[in-house]
Amino acid sequence: MENHVLLITSQDAKGLIARITSVVFRNNLNILVMKEYVDEYSNSFFMRSELSGVLEKEKLQEELQSELGSEASIEINPKQKKDVVVLCTKEYHCLSDLLTRNHFGTLNARIHAVIGNHEILRDITERFSIPFQFISHENKTKEEFESQLIKAIQKHNPDYLVLAKFMRILSPEFVARFQNKIINIHHSFLPAFIGANPYKQAYERGVKLIGATAHIVNNHLDEGPIITQQVRSVDHSFKLKGMVEAGHEVEAAVLANALKLVFEDRVFVCGNKTIILE
Amino acid sequence: MENHVLLITSQDAKGLIARITSVVFRNNLNILVMKEYVDEYSNSFFMRSELSGVLEKEKLQEELQSELGSEASIEINPKQKKDVVVLCTKEYHCLSDLLTRNHFGTLNARIHAVIGNHEILRDITERFSIPFQFISHENKTKEEFESQLIKAIQKHNPDYLVLAKFMRILSPEFVARFQNKIINIHHSFLPAFIGANPYKQAYERGVKLIGATAHIVNNHLDEGPIITQQVRSVDHSFKLKGMVEAGHEVEAAVLANALKLVFEDRVFVCGNKTIILE
Amino acid sequence: MENHVLLITSQDAKGLIARITSVVFRNNLNILVMKEYVDEYSNSFFMRSELSGVLEKEKLQEELQSELGSEASIEINPKQKKDVVVLCTKEYHCLSDLLTRNHFGTLNARIHAVIGNHEILRDITERFSIPFQFISHENKTKEEFESQLIKAIQKHNPDYLVLAKFMRILSPEFVARFQNKIINIHHSFLPAFIGANPYKQAYERGVKLIGATAHIVNNHLDEGPIITQQVRSVDHSFKLKGMVEAGHEVEAAVLANALKLVFEDRVFVCGNKTIILE
Amino acid sequence: MENHVLLITSQDAKGLIARITSVVFRNNLNILVMKEYVDEYSNSFFMRSELSGVLEKEKLQEELQSELGSEASIEINPKQKKDVVVLCTKEYHCLSDLLTRNHFGTLNARIHAVIGNHEILRDITERFSIPFQFISHENKTKEEFESQLIKAIQKHNPDYLVLAKFMRILSPEFVARFQNKIINIHHSFLPAFIGANPYKQAYERGVKLIGATAHIVNNHLDEGPIITQQVRSVDHSFKLKGMVEAGHEVEAAVLANALKLVFEDRVFVCGNKTIILE
Repeated sequence: MENHVLLITSQDAKGLIARITSVVFRNNLNILVMKEYVDEYSNSFFMRSELSGVLEKEKLQEELQSELGSEASIEINPKQKKDVVVLCTKEYHCLSDLLTRNHFGTLNARIHAVIGNHEILRDITERFSIPFQFISHENKTKEEFESQLIKAIQKHNPDYLVLAKFMRILSPEFVARFQNKIINIHHSFLPAFIGANPYKQAYERGVKLIGATAHIVNNHLDEGPIITQQVRSVDHSFKLKGMVEAGHEVEAAVLANALKLVFEDRVFVCGNKTIILE
Repeated sequence: MENHVLLITSQDAKGLIARITSVVFRNNLNILVMKEYVDEYSNSFFMRSELSGVLEKEKLQEELQSELGSEASIEINPKQKKDVVVLCTKEYHCLSDLLTRNHFGTLNARIHAVIGNHEILRDITERFSIPFQFISHENKTKEEFESQLIKAIQKHNPDYLVLAKFMRILSPEFVARFQNKIINIHHSFLPAFIGANPYKQAYERGVKLIGATAHIVNNHLDEGPIITQQVRSVDHSFKLKGMVEAGHEVEAAVLANALKLVFEDRVFVCGNKTIILE
Repeated sequence: MENHVLLITSQDAKGLIARITSVVFRNNLNILVMKEYVDEYSNSFFMRSELSGVLEKEKLQEELQSELGSEASIEINPKQKKDVVVLCTKEYHCLSDLLTRNHFGTLNARIHAVIGNHEILRDITERFSIPFQFISHENKTKEEFESQLIKAIQKHNPDYLVLAKFMRILSPEFVARFQNKIINIHHSFLPAFIGANPYKQAYERGVKLIGATAHIVNNHLDEGPIITQQVRSVDHSFKLKGMVEAGHEVEAAVLANALKLVFEDRVFVCGNKTIILE
Repeated sequence: MENHVLLITSQDAKGLIARITSVVFRNNLNILVMKEYVDEYSNSFFMRSELSGVLEKEKLQEELQSELGSEASIEINPKQKKDVVVLCTKEYHCLSDLLTRNHFGTLNARIHAVIGNHEILRDITERFSIPFQFISHENKTKEEFESQLIKAIQKHNPDYLVLAKFMRILSPEFVARFQNKIINIHHSFLPAFIGANPYKQAYERGVKLIGATAHIVNNHLDEGPIITQQVRSVDHSFKLKGMVEAGHEVEAAVLANALKLVFEDRVFVCGNKTIILE
């Protein structure tokens, strides 16, 4: 008997928690954990709850929907590993971290495939017995390239796409197809150093901290809802190369942290922000 | 119409949240924030909720007690500043930080008085227009000393006692009188370097991080439930004096963080640990 | 017999350290600490050394200048507290932190006066027995205002000016008069959120870390060489007010850290960056 | 023409830097970086310098030894990767991190072999094409076991042994054979929670930070000179398993940081402490 995660987004209203928990209680389910948050600006209510007990998914969904109204978004997921496809280009540090966690079962996900627009990361991927698919972007329109990507991705029907230093900008059409399901790691402490060569920008500005940002991808490059950010100290002795290397450590750590939150169904999107119910 | 904080500790049971929130809902109160936690080992349920609406305290208390049983601990506090007495000895760094926050209204408490067993901190206290009372421990038994302390404290009927580097060990009788209401800052990353001269011990061990620990005082010195801890880096170039100075910054920060949590009614005691519902 | 700090900036050249230390050795001085750094891009050499022994300042200066050439910048300071004037507006958190440190002798400086363009911080300043001078900017041209500031500052002949949340933009003429001697705290993790209302910008962007930056002021607002930066976590539950409060803690800490480095003669300017010899 | 690292440990004396740098200068070498530290308690001088130029190792060594006396320890290493053997037991997290860094060339070392007293980590080791040798401790005296270890290690003549969660206590004889050349990662913030099951101890004490410590191994278990330490936050919601998992992240990061310092010849031992010249 597995546990389930119940996710609710709704307009806020008085007595909401009482009404929700009564339905849960009537269904003879036990609430192991429950977190909720009300965003006062949008008057939105967000709830994440872990339930144990014999759960009839459709019945519970219907009763909750009927209690909360058709506007409410209600999601009931078995508490289990997510299915994931990883996209990458040439840099190994985030990918190899994910492959290691996947290999030892601590990623809370199953990586079904790695797709690279270069061949260079095939070796490390296959060392972990994960299939690697090479899809070059060269001599293709963005449309052709993305259509090949989509075909390759859809075979695996993933819950999430992880961009582990995938250096191609995705079209709005591509992003729309995987709404709130694409997680990216950006190599700067956003919104500082948006755009190309953030470490070069950081180096030239003489910053004393460098960082990385994991975010959900939306149509505006580098501007999706931020999931998590982390920094580390650098000093005058860091040359550009040293900043990049130091940054890679942070990038891998930030992406892993963000994915842990996402794969545990803790990340809600609210406008251009995330609500994270830990 | 002020908001209230509802604090419940109880045996865990199925449907507890539904039952609690139904009572709250029936009383026509709105739940602004609600956090709960179940400690599986002790099967205990902890809840902190902020309520808005016209609250009849006795009625709500009775209805909740009747719903949850007489074993449940139910506390309903108006969401307002706590009344506090500070005890200190000679070191100024924690006290002056608290006095500054108190002065500018960011401590979430009102410091009614500072009691020192030395005269040295009278000056800084009185600069902030807070009464300072000198109670020497010299030529007194611990019993006499503490009896004078208690008399001085009780005049202010404080919600909490803060030991801001108060360097006398309190007797079990004194501690029992202010059960879970005495907050101490210990100048080490407990449980490392328990006892006297922790910085000297840390210096001699050659540690690379030093820390401080804010905890609730119980009968065993340095062993009460930990509220919060923080560290900072040191290196070989720190002499003992430098480690002490660096430590003072951490101590003041840790104590301020812990008090913020305590004064907002977020800290529950569970055995020798704290549950913190942020 | 006090110690001295020897600061050298020069073109890099082979044997530089040998030549410098030989001069020091010939003068019968002992090197307690020595740090040096070569910036490869500008081929510049930076050195900070602490010397003990009976030091004849002019003789040592002349011999070093003759050894290193007239282009080299050589500074010999007694190792003692700096003289400082603080400028502020309305926010108390950085000022009160500096006043406390000054009062207890841990700032490594003497605050001679606080100048405010509002009256509001007179009270806290005078509680610490430091003179407060009110110089309003109202109904004055920037030139008139700054000319009054300069007059008030020059009476104290300070080594450094500290802008402790001074909310007026200083003219290039003013800045030039105190070249590399004005330290500012900026309420964001520069270069993110340059300009007005950085916390509002940060709040709206939904960042998960907020920060502060202490920097040397040059002609370009928010763009002088960065001395130190620090961040802290925030989450979705922080409203704008909460972010500002959390930010204030970081601002005070960052400014104190930066001033410690500056007042110990550890901060060199190299182009638009700092070299910090700790 | 490769660069070299010059390491000197000596009694402190006036003019030492001048004398050392004069010898270096006479040998027509350029000092790229130089750091020194004087430990006042032991009156010891430590220096690390990076030199460029055509270096005649024996000549330089002799001249420096003659200048500084026979008591001085002088080491001249080519600036190149260290040769390393890794020992492990069952836990994968530190080993796989080292294997990944080794594979991509960022470890500043070459892992020649992994030796395990269990077979379990053979798979991950061989995925990275590194030889794995299984040497069981079962049914052997410590002497027999260690004699087999030593034989296996000596084939590779390593500069350093890395204990990547190697769970056997080494004898003083074994340790003496690799004086200051064995690096261990200890799964606690030493000296807290010395001994067995540190996470269990930490869990039971209710700490709010957990940490890890990388240290040089000497004869006293868990008591060698500390190289680096790091912590991360935990809260009441961490069960023992969660604390262990969170700890593993810290352990891998701390070990990697410590090894970076060691492999770059930055770590000096001074009594039971380390001096780290970054």
